[in-house]
Formats: sequence, C-alpha cells, structure tokens
Amino acid sequence: METNIKKKIELLKSGQLSEQDFLEYMEHFPYKDLGDVKLDFHRKLRRGLPEAIYGSGKTVEQLGKIVNRFHQMGEDILITRVDAAKFKNLGDFCDGIGLLYHEKARIVTFSKKPEIKFKGSILVISAGASDEEVAEEAFISARYLGNNVEKEYDVGVACIARVLDLKPRLNNFSVLIVAAGMEGALPSVVAGMTSTPVIAVPTSVGYGASFNGLAALLSMLNSCAGGISVVNIDNGFGAAYQASLINQKISGFDK
Amino acid sequence: METNIKKKIELLKSGQLSEQDFLEYMEHFPYKDLGDVKLDFHRKLRRGLPEAIYGSGKTVEQLGKIVNRFHQMGEDILITRVDAAKFKNLGDFCDGIGLLYHEKARIVTFSKKPEIKFKGSILVISAGASDEEVAEEAFISARYLGNNVEKEYDVGVACIARVLDLKPRLNNFSVLIVAAGMEGALPSVVAGMTSTPVIAVPTSVGYGASFNGLAALLSMLNSCAGGISVVNIDNGFGAAYQASLINQKISGFDK
Amino acid sequence: METNIKKKIELLKSGQLSEQDFLEYMEHFPYKDLGDVKLDFHRKLRRGLPEAIYGSGKTVEQLGKIVNRFHQMGEDILITRVDAAKFKNLGDFCDGIGLLYHEKARIVTFSKKPEIKFKGSILVISAGASDEEVAEEAFISARYLGNNVEKEYDVGVACIARVLDLKPRLNNFSVLIVAAGMEGALPSVVAGMTSTPVIAVPTSVGYGASFNGLAALLSMLNSCAGGISVVNIDNGFGAAYQASLINQKISGFDK
Amino acid sequence: METNIKKKIELLKSGQLSEQDFLEYMEHFPYKDLGDVKLDFHRKLRRGLPEAIYGSGKTVEQLGKIVNRFHQMGEDILITRVDAAKFKNLGDFCDGIGLLYHEKARIVTFSKKPEIKFKGSILVISAGASDEEVAEEAFISARYLGNNVEKEYDVGVACIARVLDLKPRLNNFSVLIVAAGMEGALPSVVAGMTSTPVIAVPTSVGYGASFNGLAALLSMLNSCAGGISVVNIDNGFGAAYQASLINQKISGFDK
Amino acid sequence: METNIKKKIELLKSGQLSEQDFLEYMEHFPYKDLGDVKLDFHRKLRRGLPEAIYGSGKTVEQLGKIVNRFHQMGEDILITRVDAAKFKNLGDFCDGIGLLYHEKARIVTFSKKPEIKFKGSILVISAGASDEEVAEEAFISARYLGNNVEKEYDVGVACIARVLDLKPRLNNFSVLIVAAGMEGALPSVVAGMTSTPVIAVPTSVGYGASFNGLAALLSMLNSCAGGISVVNIDNGFGAAYQASLINQKISGFDK
Amino acid sequence: METNIKKKIELLKSGQLSEQDFLEYMEHFPYKDLGDVKLDFHRKLRRGLPEAIYGSGKTVEQLGKIVNRFHQMGEDILITRVDAAKFKNLGDFCDGIGLLYHEKARIVTFSKKPEIKFKGSILVISAGASDEEVAEEAFISARYLGNNVEKEYDVGVACIARVLDLKPRLNNFSVLIVAAGMEGALPSVVAGMTSTPVIAVPTSVGYGASFNGLAALLSMLNSCAGGISVVNIDNGFGAAYQASLINQKISGFDK
Amino acid sequence: METNIKKKIELLKSGQLSEQDFLEYMEHFPYKDLGDVKLDFHRKLRRGLPEAIYGSGKTVEQLGKIVNRFHQMGEDILITRVDAAKFKNLGDFCDGIGLLYHEKARIVTFSKKPEIKFKGSILVISAGASDEEVAEEAFISARYLGNNVEKEYDVGVACIARVLDLKPRLNNFSVLIVAAGMEGALPSVVAGMTSTPVIAVPTSVGYGASFNGLAALLSMLNSCAGGISVVNIDNGFGAAYQASLINQKISGFDK
Amino acid sequence: METNIKKKIELLKSGQLSEQDFLEYMEHFPYKDLGDVKLDFHRKLRRGLPEAIYGSGKTVEQLGKIVNRFHQMGEDILITRVDAAKFKNLGDFCDGIGLLYHEKARIVTFSKKPEIKFKGSILVISAGASDEEVAEEAFISARYLGNNVEKEYDVGVACIARVLDLKPRLNNFSVLIVAAGMEGALPSVVAGMTSTPVIAVPTSVGYGASFNGLAALLSMLNSCAGGISVVNIDNGFGAAYQASLINQKISGFDK
Repeated sequence: METNIKKKIELLKSGQLSEQDFLEYMEHFPYKDLGDVKLDFHRKLRRGLPEAIYGSGKTVEQLGKIVNRFHQMGEDILITRVDAAKFKNLGDFCDGIGLLYHEKARIVTFSKKPEIKFKGSILVISAGASDEEVAEEAFISARYLGNNVEKEYDVGVACIARVLDLKPRLNNFSVLIVAAGMEGALPSVVAGMTSTPVIAVPTSVGYGASFNGLAALLSMLNSCAGGISVVNIDNGFGAAYQASLINQKISGFDK
Repeated sequence: METNIKKKIELLKSGQLSEQDFLEYMEHFPYKDLGDVKLDFHRKLRRGLPEAIYGSGKTVEQLGKIVNRFHQMGEDILITRVDAAKFKNLGDFCDGIGLLYHEKARIVTFSKKPEIKFKGSILVISAGASDEEVAEEAFISARYLGNNVEKEYDVGVACIARVLDLKPRLNNFSVLIVAAGMEGALPSVVAGMTSTPVIAVPTSVGYGASFNGLAALLSMLNSCAGGISVVNIDNGFGAAYQASLINQKISGFDK
Repeated sequence: METNIKKKIELLKSGQLSEQDFLEYMEHFPYKDLGDVKLDFHRKLRRGLPEAIYGSGKTVEQLGKIVNRFHQMGEDILITRVDAAKFKNLGDFCDGIGLLYHEKARIVTFSKKPEIKFKGSILVISAGASDEEVAEEAFISARYLGNNVEKEYDVGVACIARVLDLKPRLNNFSVLIVAAGMEGALPSVVAGMTSTPVIAVPTSVGYGASFNGLAALLSMLNSCAGGISVVNIDNGFGAAYQASLINQKISGFDK
Repeated sequence: METNIKKKIELLKSGQLSEQDFLEYMEHFPYKDLGDVKLDFHRKLRRGLPEAIYGSGKTVEQLGKIVNRFHQMGEDILITRVDAAKFKNLGDFCDGIGLLYHEKARIVTFSKKPEIKFKGSILVISAGASDEEVAEEAFISARYLGNNVEKEYDVGVACIARVLDLKPRLNNFSVLIVAAGMEGALPSVVAGMTSTPVIAVPTSVGYGASFNGLAALLSMLNSCAGGISVVNIDNGFGAAYQASLINQKISGFDK
Repeated sequence: METNIKKKIELLKSGQLSEQDFLEYMEHFPYKDLGDVKLDFHRKLRRGLPEAIYGSGKTVEQLGKIVNRFHQMGEDILITRVDAAKFKNLGDFCDGIGLLYHEKARIVTFSKKPEIKFKGSILVISAGASDEEVAEEAFISARYLGNNVEKEYDVGVACIARVLDLKPRLNNFSVLIVAAGMEGALPSVVAGMTSTPVIAVPTSVGYGASFNGLAALLSMLNSCAGGISVVNIDNGFGAAYQASLINQKISGFDK
Repeated sequence: METNIKKKIELLKSGQLSEQDFLEYMEHFPYKDLGDVKLDFHRKLRRGLPEAIYGSGKTVEQLGKIVNRFHQMGEDILITRVDAAKFKNLGDFCDGIGLLYHEKARIVTFSKKPEIKFKGSILVISAGASDEEVAEEAFISARYLGNNVEKEYDVGVACIARVLDLKPRLNNFSVLIVAAGMEGALPSVVAGMTSTPVIAVPTSVGYGASFNGLAALLSMLNSCAGGISVVNIDNGFGAAYQASLINQKISGFDK
Repeated sequence: METNIKKKIELLKSGQLSEQDFLEYMEHFPYKDLGDVKLDFHRKLRRGLPEAIYGSGKTVEQLGKIVNRFHQMGEDILITRVDAAKFKNLGDFCDGIGLLYHEKARIVTFSKKPEIKFKGSILVISAGASDEEVAEEAFISARYLGNNVEKEYDVGVACIARVLDLKPRLNNFSVLIVAAGMEGALPSVVAGMTSTPVIAVPTSVGYGASFNGLAALLSMLNSCAGGISVVNIDNGFGAAYQASLINQKISGFDK
Repeated sequence: METNIKKKIELLKSGQLSEQDFLEYMEHFPYKDLGDVKLDFHRKLRRGLPEAIYGSGKTVEQLGKIVNRFHQMGEDILITRVDAAKFKNLGDFCDGIGLLYHEKARIVTFSKKPEIKFKGSILVISAGASDEEVAEEAFISARYLGNNVEKEYDVGVACIARVLDLKPRLNNFSVLIVAAGMEGALPSVVAGMTSTPVIAVPTSVGYGASFNGLAALLSMLNSCAGGISVVNIDNGFGAAYQASLINQKISGFDK
C-alpha cells in the first residue's frame, strides 16, 4: 500500500525523517480536529482509499479550511456537490493550491499524483441525458480513486438497440455502474445480459410519480435480474467507492 | 349493436313481443334493485360491453342473487376474484345455470353465445410465472368481452432474448396488455419496440420493497418509453376492459 | 408510412439519391451521438410517431444542439416543459429555424408540414382552470403527432351539469384525455357515460393532502368505472402519445 | 334535556328518591372505574348523546362487564365492530338483558325507549355494494342516537343516472352521510348537487393502489366541491355521531 | 331565498324586466364561458351560497377577468390565496370595483351588501400563533358567506388552562372550526368538552415529522372524541363553507 | 453496584471462590454463544440493568435454551411478547425454574430477588382501554428493572376531567410513561400540566387512517408541549428501560 | 423555586410591593393576550423552566412584540429558528434590550442572570459536520435552561474510533443528546456503551432516500439498544428541554 | 468454463455425442417452455452461475415440474422460500431426485457436484437472532453458487464489543454480506472498519415503525460509510448472487 503514512514510516526507518517530525505528523491521528470538522486521515490506512468530502451544506469557509489542511498533510482530496459559484469563491481560501473543477460532475479535486492503482476497469452507464450529472459524479470519483474508467451515456431501455449494442463489451469490465431515473429499468436489463456485477444508482430525474427518485430506487431494489445492488438516490460517489473497493479486491491490493 | 335490448325492440316492432311484456322488460331500467345490490343493465346499452361483477367481498348469497337475475334477463355475466371454494358454494344458488369457472384467472362466466365481436387482436404478456394469475384475468376477460386474444407468459427482462423474440409480432396487435410485478420494467421495454399501445398492469408479486405492487406501479407510471398507460395493481379485468374499448373503436362499432 | 426514411429509399430506388448520400443519411442510424445526447431517429420508423424531447433539466445549449441536428435531418421536433425564458434564449442557438412556442402548454415545436394523419378524433377535457396547463400540453402534443383534436376545459364534477352537457358528444371521439387534479374524480364520471376509452392524467394541482397529484393519481387508478387507464402526474404529452397510438391503430396506419 | 340524570334530580326534588339513593347514583360520576375500563356516564350530560363503545379489541368479558354496568345504571348502550361469533358469546355474560344485534352493521344495541329526538332527517348513501357494511354502521348508529334516518345504497358514479335520481330529494335532509371506497368520488358529485352538508366516510373497500381506503380518503379531502368534511376510514359511527350533533343543533336541543 | 336570480324572476313577473332582458340574463346559465374559465352562476341558486374562487395558480389577468364578470352580473365574490403583491397588481384590472383585501387571511372580497343571513354563530379556534393564517381564512370566509362569527386564537393544548377557559361558551355556538398544526390535538380536546359539532382544519404548520400537515391530519381523523369531521390541510375556506351550510340548515333557510 | 459479577469478585477476594471457578464464570464474558444466540451477560455490568429478551419471532426451543442458561448463571431474565400458548409450551423446556407469566403484559419473568433499587417513582398512564396491553408491558418491565411503579389507565383526552384529576400528582413522579393510540394526543396534554419528563409510547390501537400507530407516532413527535420524547410504536419495554435509566441517574446509582 | 412570581409574593408579604402593583402583575396570568399572540407566563411556574418561542413563521413584528413584553415582565426569553437577517431586523423593534444572537444555533436569547441551576451535566454529541446546526440548537438551549453542558461534534459511526474515544466519559453525564442525520446509527452505538439515557435527535441532513430526516428518525425509533427516546426531526430545543427536565428531577428541584 | 454445455460441445467434437443428440439438447435453448413456466438454461452460459427459482407463490406442482426438467437436463437447481410443509409435498413430484432441504434458510437444492469454484471467501454477518433466517438464505445460496463462505451471527451494534471482535478478520474476505433489521445500523459500523465491500441486506425483522424492513432499508441506503450497496428487504439470495459475481471476477473466471 502506497499511502503517505507508509512512506513516512519508511523515511523514519531510513533516517530521512526525524523522530520528532514523525511524531508531529502522527499526532494528528486518528483524526484531526479543525474546530468544526474532524478529518479522518486514518481512512486511507484503514480502507485503502483516500478521504472524500460531501460539499453540500458546508460553507466555503469550512471547505477552505479542509482543503488547506489536506494540502499541508500532503494528502489528496475530492469534494462532491460543489456548484460552480461555490467553487469560484473557494479559490479565495485556497491560494496556491491547484484545485481542479469538474463542472458536470460538480466535483472539486486536488491530486498530487493521479494514477491507475487497480487492475479491473469500471464502466459507467447512464439511461437518459438528464442522468449524466450523477453518472459524471461516479465517473470522476472512480477515476480519482485510482481506477480505469470508461463511460456510455444516454442508453435508455425505450430504445433497446442502444442497450444491446453494449452487450459484447459488458463482460470485459470488473464492475458496471448504471445510473437511471424515471422508471429505473436499465440496471435490470443490463444485469440480465452479463456476469459482471452491477451497482445501480437511482437518480432523482423525473417528475410526478417519480417522487424524486423513489420510483427508480424501488424498481432497482425489486429487480428480478440477479447481480444488482443499489446505492442511495443520486449517490454517484457512493457507487464509485463501492466499485473501487471491488476493484481493489480484484487487484489483490490487500494481500 | 346486437344487444338484447335492440332485439326486444325489433320483436316489439314485428309484433312478436307484446307491448306489456316489453314494458315489463324495460321497467328494470335504468337499473334493477335487488335489495342489497343495484344491477346496471343499461351499461351494455351505454358502453357496448356487458356488465362485470367484482366478486371479492361479496357473499356467495349476493353473487347467487346476481347470477340468477342476469340469467332471467338473458344477459351474460362475468365475475372476477372468485376463489375455487367460493365457486363451489355458488353452485347451490345457481341451479341449472351453466356457469364456467376459469381457475387460474379466478373468474366465473356465463355466456349464452361467445363470439368475436371486434376486429383487432389483443396480446397479453406477463413478466414472470407469478404474474400469470393477473394476466389470466386479463386474458379471460378480454375474450369474454368479444375480442380475439393471444398470450405470451413468462417473458422477463432479465432474459432479454425472450423479449426480443416477441418483437416481430407486436405491431400486428391492436393493443398489448403487459402484466409485471417486482421492478415492473417489462412494459417500458415492450413499448420501446412497437407502435402498438401498451396497457400496463402492475402486479402485487414481489416482497420487501415491492410494497405489494407499488414499486411496479411507480416504475410503469414513470416509463420513459411513450405509449404506456397504466391500470390499478392486479387489475387484469380493467386492462381487458380498456383494451376492449379500444378494439371496439377500431372496429367502428359505434359508427 | 410517409416518413423521411421511406422517401429516401424511394429516391434511392428512382435514382434521385446517390448511393453515397443515402449511406451518409443512414449512418446516423439507429441513433446519432451528439456528445452529450443520443438522438433516436429510428423511433419514427419503429413507432410511426416523430421524436419528442423532454425539455426540463436540459440546458439551452443541449436543446439548441438537438434542434439543429433534427433540422438538418429534415425531421420534425417537439420539446415539452420549456418555460418562456428558456425559449427566448433558445433562439440564439437556432438561427433561421422557425420554432413555434405554445406558451400555455410550455411546448416548442418545429414542424415542416403539419397534417392530420389519423382518422379518429381526440377530445381533451380538463377539470379546473388550473389543470389547463397540463391539458394544453396534451392538446398541442396530440395535434403535432398528427391527430384531429378538440378541447373542453373547466368541466369539474362539482357542477355536474357541465359534465352532463358533454355526454352526447363523447361517443364520437376515438379517445378521451381527461386531466384533473385535486380529487381526480372527473375521469370516473366521464368514463361512466361513454364507450370511448379514457386516458386519465392526474395533475399536481391542489394543496395539502393532494400531495402534488398523488390524491388524483390514486383516485384514477381506483376508478370503479371501467375503461380508464392512467399516465404519470402532469404527463400531458404521455397521454397524447398513447392516444395517438390508438388513433394510428384505428386508422389502419400499420397495416 | 331528557336524560336519566335530570329525571333523578326531579325525583329527588319531588321526594320520590331519597337523598342517599341519589348520592349513590351520583357517586359514579364523573366516571365509573370497572377495574380495566373507566365508563364515562357524564358524556350524555355533557354532549347530549349516549355513550358508545368501540367493540373491536375488547374481550367478550370486558364487553359483558360494560353492558351490565350500563344496564344497572338504566343507560342505553351501543357497541360497534362486534362480529357475529363475539355477539353469540356475549350472551353468556348478559343474562336477562335484551341485547339487539344488527348483523350487517356489526352493532350491538340495548335501548330502553328508542325514539326520534331531533327534527332533521339524515340520508345515508353508499357507493358500491361493498361499502354497505360501513353505511349500515352509520345508519344504525344515527337511528340509535335519536335521528330519523333513510338510506340509498349502491349509488356509484360509474352510473351517473343513479346519482342524478337522488338530486330532487337531497335538499330535504339536514345532513348527508356518503360512504365510498375505491376512488371515493361520490361525495364530490353529491355535494355539487345540493346545499345539504355532506359527511364523507372513506371505506377500505378496494384493492391494489386503494391502500386500504387511503385513495378514497385523499380524494374526499381534496374535493373541489365545497360542503364536505371527512371522518376516518370505515368510521360509520363517527359520521353518524357528527350528523347527530348537527341535527341536535337544528332541533334547538341545547337552547 | 334572496338571490339575484329570484329577484329577476320577480321583476319579470311584475313587468319591470322585459322578457328579452330576462332571457339575456339567463343565457349565461348554467355557466358563463370566459375563454379560459367557466363561471358557475348557478351555484348560488343550487347551494344557497355565493361562488368563491381559489386564487392560487391563477394569473392576475385571469382573476381580473373573473372579478369584472361577477361585478357586471351584480354578484358577490371571494378569492382565496391571494398574496399582497398579487392583490396590488389586481387593481390594474379592476378599475372602479371596490375590492377589499384581508391580508392575514390572504382573501380578496367584493360584496355589495354584507349581512348576517343565518341564525347560529360560528366560533373559529386556532391552536398556535402560526395557525392563524388558516384560521383567518376560515373567519373571513364564514363572515362573507353570511354568518355571525367569533374567534379565539392561540389556544394550544400545551397550556390546558387556555382551553378550559373556552368551555362555558362552546355550547352556545352552532359550529366550531378548530385549526391546528403540529400534533393536531386541539380538536380532540375541544370536542370532548361540548355537544357542538367540530370542523377540524389541519394546518401545514410544523417541521420535521409534521410532513406539511400530515401529522395533524392523521391525528384529527383518528380522534377518539366523537363529533369531529375534517377538511383538507390548510383549507380554512372549506371549513367555513361546511360550517355555513350547517348554519343554513339550522336557520331553516331551505324550508 | 450489586450485580452478580461484583459479588463474584468479592467472593474471590475473600477466598470464598476459587480462582478457577471465577475464571470459568468469567470466560462467558463478554458474551456466551449458545449456537443460535449470543447472550450479553456484560450488559448488567455496562448498563446497570439486567438483560431482557424480545420473545416474538423466537421459537420456544430458543427461549428455553436462553432461560436455562440465565438460570444457571444466577441471572434474572425478562422476556417480552410471549403469548399464553407459547408460555405454556415454554414450561416443558424450563423444568424447576419458577417462571412467572404476566398475561396482559405478555411478559415472562424470572427474578431471584425482586427489589426496589431506585429512588424515584414512575407513573404509567394509558389513554384507552385498548392501550393497556402496551401500558402493562411498560408497567411490568419497569417494576422488574427495580423501580417503584404506579398506573392510571383509561385516561383519554375525550373526557378531559379524567386527565385533570391526575394533575396534582404528576409532579411527584420522576418520569411519566404515557401510552396512547388513535390520535395520540394524551402525552401533549399531560406534558403541558407538569414538569416531569414524559416518555410517550404510541400504540398500534386504532383503524383506518391510524395506519398501525403511525398517526399516534407522528402526533407525539410533533407535540408542541416540551418535555416529551418518544419510543417505537407499542414499545412498552423500551419506555420502561429509558425511564429506569433516568431513575437510576436520580438515585445516584452510578456515582 | 426561584421564579419572579415567587419573588413578587415575597415582596408583597414583606410590604415592598403594594397590593395594587401585585395585582397588576398577576392580572396577566394565566396568559397575556398581545392581540395576535397569547404568552404563557404561567409555564415557568407550572414546569420550572422559562418559556421559549418558536421563531420560524413569525414575523419580525410579532417577535418584537413578544420580546418587549417579556422584557417588561422581567422574564428571560429564548427564540429558536431565527436566521441572521431576521435577527438584524429584530433590533429595530427591541431598542435597549440586550439580545444575544447564537449564529450557528440560529437562537436569540435574553437572560438577565444566566446560572447553572441543576446538578447533572448534559453532553451533546453530533454525528457529522452537517448535523452541528441542530446540535448547537440543543447546546445553547440546554445552557439557557440552566444546565451545565458539554459538546462533542463530528463523531460518526463510519469511524468507530471516534465513538469509542467517548466511552469512558459517557457514564459521567446525566443525559446524552445525540444528533444524527443520514442513517441515524450513532444513538444506537452510543446507547450500547453506557447507562446514561440518550435523547436522540434525527436531523434532516442527507439527500435522496434520507427523505429529510425520515430515514434517521425511523432508524432511531427502531434502535435495538435500550435507553433511547426520540424527539422530532431537527428539534434540538425539544431534546434540550427534555434533558433539562431530567436534570431538574436529578437535582431534586421540585422537592 | 465448466458447464454442461461446454461438455456437450467437447463430446460432440470427440464424436461421443451424435449431431442429432446435440441438436436435441440445444433446441431447448435459449429457453424451454413448460407450459406455465419458461426455464432459462442459457443463464449459466450467459452469467456463469446456475439458475435459481423463487419458490414463494409457485405451487408444488409447478416446482415439481421445474425440478424434473432441470434433473433431466443434468443441471443443478436452488429454490428459495420453500417452507417445510411445501418441501414435504414436493417429494411426491420428485421421485428419485435427491433434493436437500435447508430448513432455517428455507432453501431446496439439488447439486450433482458441489465444489468451490472461486478464489475469495465471503463472510455472512447478521445483527440479531431474528435476522438469521435471511442470513442463512445468503449463506446456503453463496455456497451453492460455488463460494467459500463463513458466518458470524448475532453481532448487534448495541453491544459494540461483538462488532469490534470481528475487525481483525474483515479484510481477509473478498465480500461481506451484512443482514440487519430494526435500525439497520450494523452495515455502517462494519463498513467503517474495513476495505472489503459490504452488501447490506435489510430484513423485515422488527415491529412498529420498522415498517417491515423499510427503516433498515433507508438506514442502509443513507449510510455515511462508503463501500455499502444494498439489495431488497430479506433478499438473502440476491446478496449471495451479487457477492458470487464479485468473487467470480476476483477469480479471473471470465478471462
């Protein structure tokens, strides 16, 4: 495992890091209190994947504090649900930190050394044009977490030809992330055509009796095609995280 | 229109029916009070389709009274939701009336002269083996209402090949009735492959988060494939009735 | 069937279209990838009705791209759920394309040659003044899809006289679209007076325990009058589409 | 006001009742503790209507104790939701008390001197044959509470003629109780035809998306016809009680 | 009955109104089509109470048209759910018509000759300070409909002393309207203390698990105190209308 | 703290218990695996209150195993939700163990030395006769957990006099447990009259729109009277447990 | 009990307050009518804790009137749910009254003499950074009500180490208030580690299937760890009030 | 891949199987119509895992037919949701077929050669004693599908020690299946301690506000710990299927 923590230990062992500096670094563990927010630097150690921050409902000031602390610790960061206006204001609090904004996904990242860490590949599929925002959240997140990711958008069941075109490739991936709103039927159809596990993401796209994604959620939970498990409505990041853990297992990362 | 009423009028005109007998026949209109139950003999006149009785929640005595009255009036009858035990007991109240029991559909019929009255054909499709009870209710009802009906059962989206096999025939029908429980995705997939209107019937088949058909109902209402309208959960008869009215229009019945 | 595709084939056969031009035209099939959005040009071929776009949740840029591509292909288009402000901005992306805006229905259309393609007529009925927006969506959509359409608005069950006035005409139509919010009782009353099939559209009109159309939706699904099927809350277009498919069948369009 | 209490006071004044007997009678007020159950003998005094007991969920023993105590106090009683088997067993606990069983209404009454106490008349209307159980609970209860009551059953909106037949009589009643399940549209239609206030009773009749009366309840609450107020699902007694209070007001009972 | 219609008939009989003018007046019956909106002038005749308009969701233009037409017909009008800004703009469309705005109730009225038409009095009770908006809608509406109305606001069950203070007066009223949000317990407590019928109005006041009035609605429907019937969440006008119909009956208005 | 564990330690210290016996006793900690069921003997140590078993859904065999193990360990036990038939069968598995059955509460207890351990007293109040089963579960449980408990049943808000009678005593208790079904208004009224904290228990008593206790639950959560917190529907034991922890704090048990 | 009322009585007895002044002071009891709002000055007497005002939905004018009246009466006040903008405007109505604004908690207080009145201490725990707003409402409220309060924020179950760190201290508090949104698991985990009673506050933090706090609410109500009772979603004040009543009991305040 | 199909092809190639026999075998593909039920023999080929049948709602006759057909085809079978009585009757229809019944899991299997096909191991964890039925369904299913499976039952969050004991082993598994009812908190706590992906199974265990597993389902969907995806309520088989597909990927089965 190539986290900063392991490196610090190696540096300590090799004498390149003084005991005092090492202890100062470690004293922030298991978590660092920023007044308002406790950061969990241990997670990378414990789970093999870097921390991500849920940006919605946090002020620009809170996010700025978090970004700076991670930057000082030499850790990567990913913040979800940041709209364009918020990102613009975030700059004032993050001087000299090269933050990247992924507009469609509404994600902010800072990553010192992006790299593919796992063996398998993930395919992100979305049902309609309006589901792409959530699909992009999954796509950017999965890539940031160290996976090779591909995407196929606007593949609705109302035009079965589009779905069938995907069939020959589906078995080549290690995990499929399928985002769909409205009736949420796409994951069932996809899962019926492959032996690759499907992580289904219901989206809040729709109106009337879609009840902000409830219709799609229930549809996916009731799928009669095996091999589907579901994450929360609009939770593109959650799907990416789960897919990434599976890829990590496939890569024998933990052994 | 070939109802008994029209015949009575012809018989009256031709002198084969006395004015008094005709009036006696007509005095039951617009409806006949049986104490407990008012029968709507006008419906056939008004809507072109014979009366049907919802059997659930009615006692065997009530059903017996209804059957006898219809028999005396020379009218056909169809009773839905009659389980096998109830049908058996019904016999005691209906001496000499040749009632027919359709076990899987849980329907009782009495029909003097079954015949195909309309031009178009209806196809009843069901998703899983467990949806067949509802599909059969639709099948038997549609046939009783005077339609040519075919059926294709156990055509789930989890095995897309089964669905695709149906494609070449779908446009030949005037209406499709598609019954599905669990995730309720089948109507969306079928509607995406044809220009034939789909009447979707959510079934209460499933468990857990299917919430007795709610998941399938919401899924169907939110279908992104156009050309789907929905009837109540498990309402096979309702779908058949709607399909029959469409067929009646196609046949120029009213003109 | 008079689609562009059939014309192209005729032109090819007659030598008026070179093989290369024909192939270029066809290569967009079965769908055309616009980066963000896959357009389904096959639908007209497959289903007999032109494509419609759900405008809500799409940016003006996305809609502009779609309109231009359809215009280049010589195809008609209808976009639902476009508010007045969005339509105004859409103009900047659609130079020289004569888009039409139907304000009450919030629909944008572009149609080279509007014409009545089907035999039967559709009647759109709305219950209250506030249901008209949805009713207009159905009205404009049904007309665009090639139907003869009439309308009767503000016909609530609280004044039964208004409903009864409609009775003599109801059997003349091939399909009735009935939009109602609040208690959603109108479709039941209308269906009880006619043999014409009713497509019921619950609207989100109401407050308190109407729960954004849920009360009307449940009411319609539970109608004890046969001959009603239901589309999603506020889905005027969906009702029009279903009605149009029925009219298409009546017209023997597919035979 | 002609309650027992007033009579006791008159008897006391006239010397026909000893002070000690009067006190013994009064010591049960404001309520009598029977161990398990506190009986509210004050209610008649406070509200002008006799006590009623909700029988469901109470054991035969509990009901027997209650009946005996009321009998000893010379008070009337009405028990709702008692099925036939329970009533049969109740006899063992109520020797020599002439209880009356109303089977369809599932009500047990004991009434020393049934009489019409109020001026106005109540009409109980039910929509379908299956709503009659609830309607009967309202009918028997209203009569027991001292009202003149009439009934019209099986008057569904699917056959509007039946409803319209009622119109000329509706204004003659002081209150209308309208019981309906399934789509619950009947109260809206009735209220639109009269100036008599309507107490609507949703029934749990229906299946699928009727959700045990929820569909009818929501429909009634959302009625666009003014003059409707609603009681709990299947609460026939509650409707009768409310109607009776209105009649009591009309009769100037309290003045 | 003192409506305009009856007057016209008298004028006609006495020769003060020409037959032609009478017919012109009558030709607007049963309803007047204003393009968008059908006005129901018959309601006053049929139900004894003037028309009211639900203002929410109607544009200022639509409301202006309605007001002008009623003014020309010499009819009164009441419009609910009009916020202050909308009322201000309404002035531009209603020159020379003396509209009255009741800010807290958000009601606009125009009434040629306000008068008390019925015998009984109505008391409007509200539970908390935040329920007053709905209570005022009921208060203003009931007064406009011709009733004597009183009010008692901010009478919550959390301070039972406030409620008990009301007890001595409750029996003097013909109807009580009780508005309450949050736990909705007030109607139960009030009804337990009186023989006057209670119309309960759940309000959408509250947060969290109040679910916009659902908690209060369910609480009221389940009241174990008899004599409560319920109208829709926030429907102050509906409660006033029902109360007014009861008062009308008490006054022998229809006899 | 007077648990068995503390005694064992004292016995060990004083030499009355051999080290080996002590270790054998302790090896069952922190929990004892019975194959199917892990018993948590640590809980008494950790939380100061003895273990309780939720009996519903466990077979008689499983319960028998549990009882025997607790008996051998010299620990008390309380099992909730055991119906009379189940208790009878349980005897076969628990020879020589003096189990006590509390029929109304549906509770089985075995307690070597019942005693009052805490200073304050708990009052259990129930609203209607049908809520008593849940109230008894709370009553028996609280007593078993070492509290002084009193009860007042059948105190509904519909007869406010019964509630007011309680007022003078309420402040004398340390905690009030208030069980109510239907509209669930009682806790609000009680809490408004005292400074004693109220634990509210919604019961599933009711019908129709009570939705198995949901109405009461929502009502209690939305109470505008402060000082109420709520446990799950029908969870009499949970209320007793919470009340007992409060009493334990009052008694300075932990200090 | 040290309220103003008791002081007034002492002053009266000692002759420092004239009988007339005392009577004037008392005449505002049991509540003071401010036109719109009735203030409950009795509550402090009845319940031992000062009044709090729910600020949401009240206008700045209403709040100003309330503050002034309390100030004149020499009473403390706490207003919840006041956003920063509203507080700013409130100043114009409250000249010379030293109001304090707690921004994160959105609470306004005015307190003449803040003091610790009770013996036990309360610990407020929040699960995530986004739950702090609600936790702060509890924290500020509990302190204002006279309690010693501590806090531990951002203690989520996803990092169990943070939770375990709290364990040694938990038994030292008299009550724990635990605020959590999303899956709402924290109260279960905390309650399993201590014998201190837990007041759980579900927060509306989350998205998708959290349904504005419903997921957390249900999770907490179903906790299998005893010793948890629940208040309404986001009701930080309610939790503080309940905790304060418990502390009051512990302090023997009422005896 | 070692399916029968591959073997048949090898036999054909090597001449051990005649072309005619091979074709006869293949003609059952893609599915075999048994009248009522279509069997999907292709699934093993398409998805790498044998077919499973959902037994609930199917008659013993239907199940018997299915078992016989699979037996003749030399295929394995697993039937879920078969209660003991049904299994007993199934014997009459399955002479000479060695069916195995797993009582706690309610599963019937027939497997010619059980073997471990995949590399990783699965751990099934259940929260309470009552969740074991669902956990067993997952355990038996996962083993049947070719996985190495271990189990840890009765690990509730209310006793965090039990959960922490599991921590050291969690990273050794390839997938964790965690079944929990009531508050459903266990998956969050487990996922927070490991980098192994968690498949969460909400169970319908609980009462009151657990709403048959809805509380647990929502809790799991809203988990703030990443790495959790969810299957339907009580869907132990679904979790096992998904886990098995992941193991298959890990084993490079498809490459």
